Amino acid sequence: MDCIFGVDVGGTNIKIGKFVKGELVDYSSINTNKENDGKQIMPDILKEINRMLNGDTLIGIGMGVPGPVVNGVLLKAPNLGWETFDVVERVRSEYGNIYIKVTNDANLATLGEHKLGGGIGFKDFVFLTLGTGIGGGIILNNELHEGINGSAGEIGHIRVDFRNLRKCNCGLFDCVERYASASGVVITAREKIPGRKTSLSLDNLSSKIIFDEAKKGDEVALEVVDEMIEKLATALSQIANTLNPEAFVIGGGVSKTGAFLLDKLSKRFQELAFFPVRNTQFRLATLGNDAGIYGGYYIIKKELEKESIV
Amino acid sequence: MDCIFGVDVGGTNIKIGKFVKGELVDYSSINTNKENDGKQIMPDILKEINRMLNGDTLIGIGMGVPGPVVNGVLLKAPNLGWETFDVVERVRSEYGNIYIKVTNDANLATLGEHKLGGGIGFKDFVFLTLGTGIGGGIILNNELHEGINGSAGEIGHIRVDFRNLRKCNCGLFDCVERYASASGVVITAREKIPGRKTSLSLDNLSSKIIFDEAKKGDEVALEVVDEMIEKLATALSQIANTLNPEAFVIGGGVSKTGAFLLDKLSKRFQELAFFPVRNTQFRLATLGNDAGIYGGYYIIKKELEKESIV
Repeated sequence: MDCIFGVDVGGTNIKIGKFVKGELVDYSSINTNKENDGKQIMPDILKEINRMLNGDTLIGIGMGVPGPVVNGVLLKAPNLGWETFDVVERVRSEYGNIYIKVTNDANLATLGEHKLGGGIGFKDFVFLTLGTGIGGGIILNNELHEGINGSAGEIGHIRVDFRNLRKCNCGLFDCVERYASASGVVITAREKIPGRKTSLSLDNLSSKIIFDEAKKGDEVALEVVDEMIEKLATALSQIANTLNPEAFVIGGGVSKTGAFLLDKLSKRFQELAFFPVRNTQFRLATLGNDAGIYGGYYIIKKELEKESIV
Repeated sequence: MDCIFGVDVGGTNIKIGKFVKGELVDYSSINTNKENDGKQIMPDILKEINRMLNGDTLIGIGMGVPGPVVNGVLLKAPNLGWETFDVVERVRSEYGNIYIKVTNDANLATLGEHKLGGGIGFKDFVFLTLGTGIGGGIILNNELHEGINGSAGEIGHIRVDFRNLRKCNCGLFDCVERYASASGVVITAREKIPGRKTSLSLDNLSSKIIFDEAKKGDEVALEVVDEMIEKLATALSQIANTLNPEAFVIGGGVSKTGAFLLDKLSKRFQELAFFPVRNTQFRLATLGNDAGIYGGYYIIKKELEKESIV
C-alpha cells in the first residue's frame, strides 16, 4: 500500500505517524537523543520509519522541527543541538525522489488543526500553543504563512510589559510567554503567594493546580489567572489588529482548562481589540500532541493534490 | 483612448488621477463635502471623473475609502459621515460593467507603494503611514491582505502601554498612534516641556518642529523622539514577530524626517524583535499623498492582467 509519514521532532521525543488512505495506521514515539549535538536524531527517525514501513510503499514524509525553516533548510534548533541543516536533502539521500516537506513544528501543528482540528472551516486563523513556552502558526487564505525567514507566528515573544520585569530565554524582556505560558503563570503565582491567604503552595505549583484552584474561587489563583489573561489578551488584540483573522485556535497544556480560560480570554480580548476586529472567534485545538503528525500527513497530501495524484 | 481612474477619498479632500497606458495624464483634488452625512461626496466624485474623461473610454476605477471594506461594501467611514454603503454598486449604477475595485484607503496606498514606491521588489511587507493617526496595510505573497472584515493593518491601535495614560479616539487606551503619530509626539512634548530648558515652545508645536529641534540636539526634543521610537519599535517588533515580513515601508508626514527617524527606529527595532526577525528591512515610502491614486490604478491593472487584457 502507498503510505505517508508525519513526523514531529521535539526536544524530548519524536512522534511518528504512518498514514494509509488518510487513516493513521501506525504510531510511534521515540526518545530524542540529543548527545553529540543531536547527530543520532535523524538516523533514529529513518530507522523507525523503515521499521514502520513494513513492506508498504513510501510516497512522502512531512516533518516538523523545533526551529525556523526556509525552503526545507532548518536555520537552527537549540533544543536538538542542531545548527543549520538541510533536512530535506538528508531525507532525500535516504529515500530518493519522494515528496518531502519540512517546516517549523508549530506550523505543522497549525496545519493539522486546520485540516482535522479546531481550525476546520477557517480560511484565516492564528493557532497558538500554551505550553512551557508559547508557539504559534498562521493560516491565511488556507495556506501556511511561514514568513521570509520561516519565523512567522513567533507570538510567544510579543512584548507585553515595559518594565523589564521578566527575562525571557530569548534574551528579551517581558515576552508574553513569560506571563501566559505554563511556566509564566507559575512565576506569577510565586510572586503573589507570599503573605497571602490561599490554597496555593510554593512547594507544589503547576499551571494545572493554579487553574484548578482558580475555578474553586481561590482569590490569589484568580489574580494569577487574571494577570495571564491580561497579557495574553493584549498580545492577541495586537495580532488581530494586524491580521484581522477569523479565529484564534488555542492548544497546548494550558488550554486543557477549556471554557474557563476561553471565556475569560475572549471577554478581555473584546475589550482590548480595535472595534472592527472584536468579533474574532476563539476555539480550542482538538488534536493535542498529535496535531504535528496529522499536519505532516496533510502537508504531503497537499503536494499530491497540486499534481492531482490524490 | 482607454483610461483608468485612481480615486483616494479622504476626510478633507478627494484625489483623482486619470491614467492612460500606465501614465498619470490628469490629476484633480476636490474638497470633501461632509454635509448631510456626506451625501454629496459620490455625486461630486462621479461628476469630476466625467469632466476628466474628456472623451476617453473608461475601463475601470480603483477607489480607496477611509474605513473597512468587505467585498466592495464599506462598513463605516466616520470621517465622511458614511454608514454601510455598497460603493461598488453605486459606481456601477453610473458606469455599468467596467472594472471597479474599492478598498480601504491605507490598503490602496500600500498597493501604490508596492508597485511604484518604497515597496518595490518586496513580496511581503507592511506599510505604515505616520500622519495625524497611524494607518497601515499589508502585502503578503504580492497580494493585499485585507482581513476577514477588511480591517487588517490597523496597526495604529496596537497597545503599547499598560497604564491607561492616553485615551485614543477609538475608545481604547495607549494605542501606538497616541504616542508615535504627529499628534502623539506633540502630546509627549506638551508633557515634557514645562519647567525644562528647551528650544521647544508650548505655543508653537508640531511634529516637524520637534524633529527639527531634535536633529539640532535639543535635549527635550530628543527625549520626545526617543519615546516615540520606543513605542513604535515595540509595535513593529510585535508585527514582525507575528508576520516575519521582508520590510517595513514608512510613509506619512512624520516620515519626511527621513533617515534620522529610520536609523533610530531600525536600531531600537533590532533590540526589541525576536532574533530570527531582526533583519527586517526599513524603507521610506516615496509616493507621498499620491500613493492612493497609483494604488487605484494598479488594483484595476491587476484585474485586467487576470483576464490577460493588458
